[in-house]
Amino acid sequence: NPETEKTLSQTQKLAIDICSLDKAMSLDHSMPRGATSFEARGTGGLQVYVTYDPKHLPKPEGSERWPLHADTEVIVSLKALSSALNDNKVRVSYYNETGRTPIAEAWVYITCVGKCQLDRQPVFSPGLLRQKGEEMTKWTWGPDGEGAVLLVNCDRDGPSYGNMDHTYPYVRSQADLQDLSLVILNINSPAGIFDNHKLMLHISIFDAAKVRVFHAAENTSVSHYENILGSDKLSYTVPPTDGRGQHTFYVEGLAFPDGDFNGLVSLNATLLEQTSLTSPATPVFTDTVVFHVAPWLMTPNTQRPLEIFVCSIEKGVNSNGKFLEAIKLLARKANCKLTICPEVENRGDRWIQDEMELGYVEAPHQSFPVVFDSPRNRGLKEFPFKQILGPDFGYVTREPKNGRVPPVSVKGRDYSLGRILIGSSFPGSGNRKMTKVVRDFLYAQKVQAPVELYSDWLTVGHVDEFLSFVPAPGKKGFRLLLASPLACLKLFEEKQKEGYGNAALFEGEVGKITLNEILTDRNLRQDSKYVQSCIDWNRSILKRELGLTERDIIDIPQLFTLEGSTATALFPDMVNMLVLGKHLGIPKPYGPIIHGQCCLEVEVRSLLEPLGLSCTFIDDFFSYHVLSGEIHCGTNVLREAFSFHCVDVPD
Amino acid sequence: NPETEKTLSQTQKLAIDICSLDKAMSLDHSMPRGATSFEARGTGGLQVYVTYDPKHLPKPEGSERWPLHADTEVIVSLKALSSALNDNKVRVSYYNETGRTPIAEAWVYITCVGKCQLDRQPVFSPGLLRQKGEEMTKWTWGPDGEGAVLLVNCDRDGPSYGNMDHTYPYVRSQADLQDLSLVILNINSPAGIFDNHKLMLHISIFDAAKVRVFHAAENTSVSHYENILGSDKLSYTVPPTDGRGQHTFYVEGLAFPDGDFNGLVSLNATLLEQTSLTSPATPVFTDTVVFHVAPWLMTPNTQRPLEIFVCSIEKGVNSNGKFLEAIKLLARKANCKLTICPEVENRGDRWIQDEMELGYVEAPHQSFPVVFDSPRNRGLKEFPFKQILGPDFGYVTREPKNGRVPPVSVKGRDYSLGRILIGSSFPGSGNRKMTKVVRDFLYAQKVQAPVELYSDWLTVGHVDEFLSFVPAPGKKGFRLLLASPLACLKLFEEKQKEGYGNAALFEGEVGKITLNEILTDRNLRQDSKYVQSCIDWNRSILKRELGLTERDIIDIPQLFTLEGSTATALFPDMVNMLVLGKHLGIPKPYGPIIHGQCCLEVEVRSLLEPLGLSCTFIDDFFSYHVLSGEIHCGTNVLREAFSFHCVDVPD
Repeated sequence: NPETEKTLSQTQKLAIDICSLDKAMSLDHSMPRGATSFEARGTGGLQVYVTYDPKHLPKPEGSERWPLHADTEVIVSLKALSSALNDNKVRVSYYNETGRTPIAEAWVYITCVGKCQLDRQPVFSPGLLRQKGEEMTKWTWGPDGEGAVLLVNCDRDGPSYGNMDHTYPYVRSQADLQDLSLVILNINSPAGIFDNHKLMLHISIFDAAKVRVFHAAENTSVSHYENILGSDKLSYTVPPTDGRGQHTFYVEGLAFPDGDFNGLVSLNATLLEQTSLTSPATPVFTDTVVFHVAPWLMTPNTQRPLEIFVCSIEKGVNSNGKFLEAIKLLARKANCKLTICPEVENRGDRWIQDEMELGYVEAPHQSFPVVFDSPRNRGLKEFPFKQILGPDFGYVTREPKNGRVPPVSVKGRDYSLGRILIGSSFPGSGNRKMTKVVRDFLYAQKVQAPVELYSDWLTVGHVDEFLSFVPAPGKKGFRLLLASPLACLKLFEEKQKEGYGNAALFEGEVGKITLNEILTDRNLRQDSKYVQSCIDWNRSILKRELGLTERDIIDIPQLFTLEGSTATALFPDMVNMLVLGKHLGIPKPYGPIIHGQCCLEVEVRSLLEPLGLSCTFIDDFFSYHVLSGEIHCGTNVLREAFSFHCVDVPD
Repeated sequence: NPETEKTLSQTQKLAIDICSLDKAMSLDHSMPRGATSFEARGTGGLQVYVTYDPKHLPKPEGSERWPLHADTEVIVSLKALSSALNDNKVRVSYYNETGRTPIAEAWVYITCVGKCQLDRQPVFSPGLLRQKGEEMTKWTWGPDGEGAVLLVNCDRDGPSYGNMDHTYPYVRSQADLQDLSLVILNINSPAGIFDNHKLMLHISIFDAAKVRVFHAAENTSVSHYENILGSDKLSYTVPPTDGRGQHTFYVEGLAFPDGDFNGLVSLNATLLEQTSLTSPATPVFTDTVVFHVAPWLMTPNTQRPLEIFVCSIEKGVNSNGKFLEAIKLLARKANCKLTICPEVENRGDRWIQDEMELGYVEAPHQSFPVVFDSPRNRGLKEFPFKQILGPDFGYVTREPKNGRVPPVSVKGRDYSLGRILIGSSFPGSGNRKMTKVVRDFLYAQKVQAPVELYSDWLTVGHVDEFLSFVPAPGKKGFRLLLASPLACLKLFEEKQKEGYGNAALFEGEVGKITLNEILTDRNLRQDSKYVQSCIDWNRSILKRELGLTERDIIDIPQLFTLEGSTATALFPDMVNMLVLGKHLGIPKPYGPIIHGQCCLEVEVRSLLEPLGLSCTFIDDFFSYHVLSGEIHCGTNVLREAFSFHCVDVPD
């Protein structure tokens, strides 16, 4: 739809106010003395009609002549672009009480310039970039939503090493350019329009830290594309053309949605009229494209694994050489790449799950994984930035502003786009809360609304100590696994009844303990009751917040003991597993051997194999378990992005 | 509705998992070996039923006996409170393939305690505190919304001078107590429940800076009410009763909604079970009340005036003694209190409109005006805190975090609850933006969504230089007045035609200028065209954002001249008026005298008096106009609150 531009000429001294509206302009027809009625006609490119209030004024019958009345308004809308300046006209003729010929006439000359259209790039993935209608000044979520998407250019395409690409105020390479969003400015106006007009691109001072715009020039390397908007550059005058023309811009996101940033940025193009050499220019109309910076998304266990990260610890009683061999085998089975972080990079820190969370960002033109580097900062502190950040692999972090860095637990789980599970504390033990900057960041991504669970009853305090999700057939596509002390006691009681009371955990090892001993240990029974009630509390939250029923939950036998007032797994914590599609790497529990088989392994297999899952029990006892973690804590997995697009999440 | 509390007793070793749900608990009936079906029955206080998936399992005909199947679930809901511990029972009987008598039975003993109900205060203004249904954990806007309201206790009820009441961690006086929200905790449980349970009130660490809770004790002065929650106090154990009891709490808001605070705070009560002396307590259920901190609301011109504030400037050529006399007369006509801020308090600063904005807060139990002290800080800097803050008159301010303090223009205008108009800059002259902390604050109040106008083309740059709102008959109840250079030129042209070309602005004064001179001044005509286009741009925004038509707008004749690149009124700027109901105090324009009357005054009267408005033209030439302001800039008005409640604004 063409947009209006006004030039005004008056054949007589008649006041004609012209309001520039979005797709129509209104003529508030003040009138010459003596006039009592009027008629308005426009040339071919215009549609002229009169609005009136039928309560106060009947429509004149069979006549285009309207009584002059405060309640009438002439609306002119434009049907086509002008091919020359002032080629459209509206004539308003005024009549007095008796007259047949007008006592006065007013002419309004109108040039209809094509709206200096900001076109976003074409749609690459249907449904993701919602380009409905004309309205680009709004951004709405959901499958019927509208709006453009911008990526935080937080990867490092290079050309050489250094920081994230968006920290440089220029386009670093052709690969770097692919992460920016394309905007085409189409100018479709009569020649001469830029004699007394100019076209300005501008952003608000608030958006200036969130977005950067480059003007692409032909026949030049991308590194010479001019940075026209961003930080201290709030406006840019587009070089004038002879009326028609096209300019190409690239828009770069600089910041993720956060506690103080809702993720929306606006790029505006305004046509300004220069009424004289001495007065400043005034706006004629503005076209705006609103972008939403793509949120950072986590991927759940149920997504297909692409790459496993695990640390190598070479020396000492807790070295993990054998463990690495087992993971290698599992990775091969799951057809998944394995990356081993050597000791020189992990500096003795094996807890790669806690140091970082792997997610991704997506826009129609580009998608890449992004590592969220947690403010935990132990031996692996440098790993995400130095080893993960790279071409098409982004990086983001948040540093707490105050000195307190409580343990951070961030686990992404989901059904559809899922929700983020946050480990939290129960009142009265309120010290261990996720640090506020991380929490704000996670909530601000919006599309995976966090659920806060109660994990502070655990010594380490991470939610992966009592739950996991595995893929499964059925509509929901997954099962929730919950550690269950009562299920474990029940299993052991059955085995005792069957005559295996002398079978033992850790058979042949130093900590060996028989079923009879376990089942008569009043403290252990008391601890189990307590831990079960803590897990049940979370079970209720998960059922409510994720819409689960009991049928979606599987209880995995697991015992915990209290040390002081917090709980630790008595034997390797089986829910703390590595999920690679159907292939599960489960901590080997060292349960009682009955008929030559570990009865815990048999039980877990009987629960999970009917779902089509393959269980591999991996020994992590000395390499992880005794150090208060298990397989899941010691690994991290890059997973495939959702096929469902984040912008299609209803608000 | 009663809430569940669980105690578990097992007649046989049957695993019965109990999930605590909101209003039902589910028994996941794992079963004894050999069992193939079951039957579940409850005592009178319970309703027991079985859920199943009809796809996999037909309902057994004429029998309460259900096949054991993974898809069945027993749901127990509670009909009445327990009068003693364990007075409700569920019996689950298991049967084998052939048997008529159960092969095993499981008993579940249930104590149904009254939900330790957090009751918000009774409804004082119907519709404001929406207490629908049981759900107090959500807060929704709109007439059908639900939720409780909290006031920021930002007035100073005393007893003595000092800071705002909410800066003291105790209740200062009986008057102070009236600003807090009452919460009653009703405990309605069988005796003995607190032998192994405790009731804890708690808030999150994020809410701790936003809210403070006091426990009211009988027979003690309010100043001894114990501060139980807030800042470093995250939880509080309620003193145990013998089962039934009532506690009274008062909740105080500490912070307004802002860029990093959505205004919601939660007060939680959790019943904790102490399973043994050695294990920590575990939660049984939580009751939550969500409060929304009442937003700060501005009042528009159309609200009835209560009190006018104006500064006294006693000495010099710009003293305002005569002006004050005129304001006194107008205030008397409008039946409105007048408060004159003496020179010792205003320190020579007469621009009281710019220093502060008067608004209010409201909750069902209390409402009071609140002054927003802008970060402008010239001579009047201390006035809002020292002279306005007081009993039932609150105070709030925001200081910019960086050193740049651009001019701030905040004007509240509205229809219904209205919108806030913010003066802003056009790109290319992008220095004068409202400071971010003020802007964030205004947007965060939400219910009066700001509209940004383009006022930077003016030398001072405030929106009251080109617009005002006056009350008027009709559905909308107001008219928008816009300064109009073209309307002024048109009027002058008519007068010239009628033969008054020698009539002059400022007749008899130094700056005298005739209509003939004005109408032949090409610069003035050029400036007028420019200014008109700037105002027209805002006219479009206002029509679009406030849903106005041309019929809601009145053009007030007014000329401006450009000084450098910004505009200043050529004669006293009439739209910069004081609106006191129907009584308007308008800057005396000193227009051309025709038939003994100022033709500008005659024109404005003819536009406004038909609306029932009374125009008083007040001389502010030397006291305000030559100092770049007018009557509106030099006054401030406390107005009546809306009868429409802020919580009824749809989100």
